[in-house]
Amino acid sequence: MFTKETYIQRRAQLKKLVGSGLVILLGNNDAPKNYPANVYKFRQDSSFLYYIGLQRESLAAVIDIDNDQEYLLGNEIDIDDIVWFGYVPSIKEYAESVGIAHSAPSADLKKLVDAAKAKRQEIHFLPPYRYEHNILLADLLGFHPLEAREKASVKLIKAVVQMRSIKSAEEVEKIERALEIGYKMHTTAMKACRSGVTEQYIAGLLEGVANSYGSTSFPTILSMHGEIQHGYPSTRPLEEGRLMLCDAGAETNSNYCSDNTRVTPISGKFTQRQLEIYQIVEACHDLVIEKAKPGMKWLDMHLDVARLMTDMLKDVGLMKGNTEDAVQAGAHAMFFPHGLGHMMGMDVHDMEGLGQNYVGFDDEVQPSTQFGLNCLRCGRRLQPGFVMTDEPGIYFIPHLIDLWRSEGRHKKFINYDLLETYKDFGGIRLEDDILITETGNRVLGKQIIPYHPKELEEFINE
Amino acid sequence: MFTKETYIQRRAQLKKLVGSGLVILLGNNDAPKNYPANVYKFRQDSSFLYYIGLQRESLAAVIDIDNDQEYLLGNEIDIDDIVWFGYVPSIKEYAESVGIAHSAPSADLKKLVDAAKAKRQEIHFLPPYRYEHNILLADLLGFHPLEAREKASVKLIKAVVQMRSIKSAEEVEKIERALEIGYKMHTTAMKACRSGVTEQYIAGLLEGVANSYGSTSFPTILSMHGEIQHGYPSTRPLEEGRLMLCDAGAETNSNYCSDNTRVTPISGKFTQRQLEIYQIVEACHDLVIEKAKPGMKWLDMHLDVARLMTDMLKDVGLMKGNTEDAVQAGAHAMFFPHGLGHMMGMDVHDMEGLGQNYVGFDDEVQPSTQFGLNCLRCGRRLQPGFVMTDEPGIYFIPHLIDLWRSEGRHKKFINYDLLETYKDFGGIRLEDDILITETGNRVLGKQIIPYHPKELEEFINE
Repeated sequence: MFTKETYIQRRAQLKKLVGSGLVILLGNNDAPKNYPANVYKFRQDSSFLYYIGLQRESLAAVIDIDNDQEYLLGNEIDIDDIVWFGYVPSIKEYAESVGIAHSAPSADLKKLVDAAKAKRQEIHFLPPYRYEHNILLADLLGFHPLEAREKASVKLIKAVVQMRSIKSAEEVEKIERALEIGYKMHTTAMKACRSGVTEQYIAGLLEGVANSYGSTSFPTILSMHGEIQHGYPSTRPLEEGRLMLCDAGAETNSNYCSDNTRVTPISGKFTQRQLEIYQIVEACHDLVIEKAKPGMKWLDMHLDVARLMTDMLKDVGLMKGNTEDAVQAGAHAMFFPHGLGHMMGMDVHDMEGLGQNYVGFDDEVQPSTQFGLNCLRCGRRLQPGFVMTDEPGIYFIPHLIDLWRSEGRHKKFINYDLLETYKDFGGIRLEDDILITETGNRVLGKQIIPYHPKELEEFINE
Repeated sequence: MFTKETYIQRRAQLKKLVGSGLVILLGNNDAPKNYPANVYKFRQDSSFLYYIGLQRESLAAVIDIDNDQEYLLGNEIDIDDIVWFGYVPSIKEYAESVGIAHSAPSADLKKLVDAAKAKRQEIHFLPPYRYEHNILLADLLGFHPLEAREKASVKLIKAVVQMRSIKSAEEVEKIERALEIGYKMHTTAMKACRSGVTEQYIAGLLEGVANSYGSTSFPTILSMHGEIQHGYPSTRPLEEGRLMLCDAGAETNSNYCSDNTRVTPISGKFTQRQLEIYQIVEACHDLVIEKAKPGMKWLDMHLDVARLMTDMLKDVGLMKGNTEDAVQAGAHAMFFPHGLGHMMGMDVHDMEGLGQNYVGFDDEVQPSTQFGLNCLRCGRRLQPGFVMTDEPGIYFIPHLIDLWRSEGRHKKFINYDLLETYKDFGGIRLEDDILITETGNRVLGKQIIPYHPKELEEFINE
C-alpha cells in the first residue's frame, strides 16, 4: 500500500481528467472455483487498488465528481465472519484509511446511482471482466449483462490509462521487488531442469517460490513445446536434447508484477542448431535494450527486431529474399507470430482489460490486422515511466508450417525445405522488463537471470 | 479419466434416476483473475467431470432423456488457437472419446433448449456458481441471472448427489493418490516450521509440492491464529511458543481431493497447556475412527464427539455442569463452533455447490439453527462408500469469548475466568479422511501424517 495522500492525489487527478459525472469503481469479489465457497486466491482489481488501495473483497467506490464527494461501499462483518475469517476493520475505518469521507452498505450503490440518474449525471465505469459485475451493472443501468464491456466509459478508460501508464518511483520499486522473486523462481526452475523430471514438477517448484513471497502474475508457461505460446506444464518428463521454455512471473503481495522468459537446454548444453537460433533471439532481445527510448514508436522497435531477425534467419538459411520486403509482407511472423512486448505494472499485461486499443495505441498508431503484427499489444510512442517487456522469440510451429506451405504463403521469403527439418525444435523466447527513462531505458531487476549462452550453461551446471 | 464405459454407465444411471426431460450439464470456462485473458488455473466442474470426463474449457453437454440422445457442445479451434494454446482434438473426437453420439457448436445449445421448450420437456440444470452460467441460463430459460440457483432442478440435484455420494473403488484410489500428495505437503510444512519464518513462506513450500503433482484442493489455511477457522497465511513470522495450524489438501490432476489438518508447535515441543488441549482433540479425532460405521447418523457422531470434548474440557476446568445439558444447549460450540466433518470427493466439500441440504441432510435428519451445529455440513446416516473428513477442533476465539461473556451466555457450563487466560492460545484441529466400509471405516492414505504428540515431536525434530 501507498500513503493515504497518494490515493487522495490520484483520485483528485482522476476527477480532473474525467471532468464530470459519477465514477463507479468496483472492487473484486472472491471468485468461485468449483463451488461458491471454494474460491481462487483473492485478487483485487488493479484500478481499484490504484485509486482506493484496499485489499478487502466485495467493496465498491463511488466518486461523485460534480458534487466532489467520495463513498466507500461494503458490508460490515458479524460474529460468524470473525469466527471463520478473523476480525477486519469497519467500512468506515477502511474508508478513513484511504481518505474517503463517506462509507455505506453495499446496497447503497443503487441509491447513489439512482440519484445520479435522476440528476442526469453521466455515469462512468470500467469494462468488467467478472460476470457478477456484468449483472450488477446491468441491473443498475438497464442493459443486458453482456453489453457491459461495450457500455464502459471511454473517458474514464482514457483517464485511467493515462495515469497508470506512467509508473512512479515507488511503483518501479515494487516491480523490482517482484523481479527479485522472479529471479528466485526462474533460477530454481533452471537449476532443477533435467531429463526425467516432469514439466509440472518444475512448475510446482517455481510456483512454490512465488507463493512463498507473493504469487504468480499469470499461469506459468513451462514446456518442451516452447513453440506453443502459452504452453502450460504437462505431466510429460523432460527429454534429453530438448529445450525447456519457461515464461513466468511473480506478483508481490501488493500486486506488482514481473514477467521473464528463459530457455534452458535440458541436457545442460545447447546443441549447435539450438545455439544458432538462440543467438538470434538473444541479439533481438539485446537490440531493444540498446535502442528503446522515449519518443520512439514501440511499433518501430518491433519492426527493427523483425528486420534483425529476418537478416539473421537468412544467414541460417531459413529465410531468403529482401529483408525489408519480407518484413513488410509479414513473412517473419512464421517464426515470430507475436508482439515484441507489452506494458507491465499491476497487471502483467498492464491494463489489458481496459481495452488494448486504448492502452497500446492512439490516433497516431493504430493496430494492424496482419498475422503476427495483430498480436502486438502496444504500438504507440514510448514515454518515460513506461515499463515494457522485451520478449522476442523464434518458434517452429508444425501446424503453421504445414498450413502456410500448403498455401504457398511467403514462399519467396521462407525456405520451407529447410524449415521442415526444424519441426521438432520447439521454440525460444527471451524476456526481460525495461523501464523507459528520460534518455533511454533500464533493465529492471537487481539481478538479471542468466541468459547469455555460456553464462547460462555455466550457471545451470555449477 | 475413467474408461469410456464408466461415463456411459453413469449417464445411463442418471437418465434412469431423473426419468424424463432434458438435462444440461455446463462445463466450466476459464475464470478471469484481473483481466479477461489472465485466468486462474482451469478447474472443470466436478459433476461435468463425473458424467462427461472432459477437461477442456467451455464445453456443455445435453442429455435428452425423452429421446435418448446425447450431445456435446463446443467450438472448434483455429490456427490462432494452435499457435497460442497448442493443438486439441475436435469436438466430435472429444464426444466419441466419452461415448457421446452427437457434437455441435456451442451456439446450438439454444436450439436444443428451444426445441425442448417447444415440446414442453422439463429442463434440468444444476445450480450455477460461475456467473457467466447464470447469464447463459437466464438467457436460455427466461429468468433473472441471480435466480438461476433457486431455479435449478431438485430432481437432477438429488440424482447427482445419490450417485456421487458413493465412491467407487477407482475413485477411492484417486483420493488416496491425493492423500499421498497431501502427506508430502503437510510433512514439508511441519519440517519447515520454525520461529522467524513467515506463514506465507511455509504455505508457499506446501503449495509448491501440491502444484508439482497436481494442485491444492482449497485455499491453504496456515496460521498461528488457528482459532480463525479459515486463517489464511499472513506475512507474520512464526513465533516461539505458539502453534502453527495447517489445514491443506491436494487435488490430483484428475481432480480428486485430500483434506488434512495438523498442528505443529513452533518451538518443536508442546507446552503442558497446549498438550492438554491437543490431547482432547486427539481423543475426539480417534473416537470417530473407532466408531463411525454405516447406518450411524453423522449428527450423532458429531454429538458423541461434543460430549467427549465437554467431559475432557471439564477435566481441564474450562467447562462445568452436566455434560448432556451442556451439549444439548450448544455450550461446547464456544470451543468447537463447526461441524465434525464433510463429504469429500472431487470437491473438497463434496457437492457443496449443489446445496448442503441435499448432500448432508434428508427427511430424517434436518439441519439445525443452533450456533455451531448450524455449521454441520452433514447429518444423515452413513453409507458404505461415503468419504468423510474427521476434523474436530478446539479454539479460543477472543471476540466470541467477549461476546458470550457479555451476554452471560452458557455461564452455567463455561468457566469464563479460566477461559480469559486462554485468549492467546490460538486453536487446534486434527483432520483425516475416512472411507465408510461395510462394517466400519478405514482411514485413507498409505501414510498417516504424524499426529500423536510424541510421534509428531520426534518427526519434526529428527
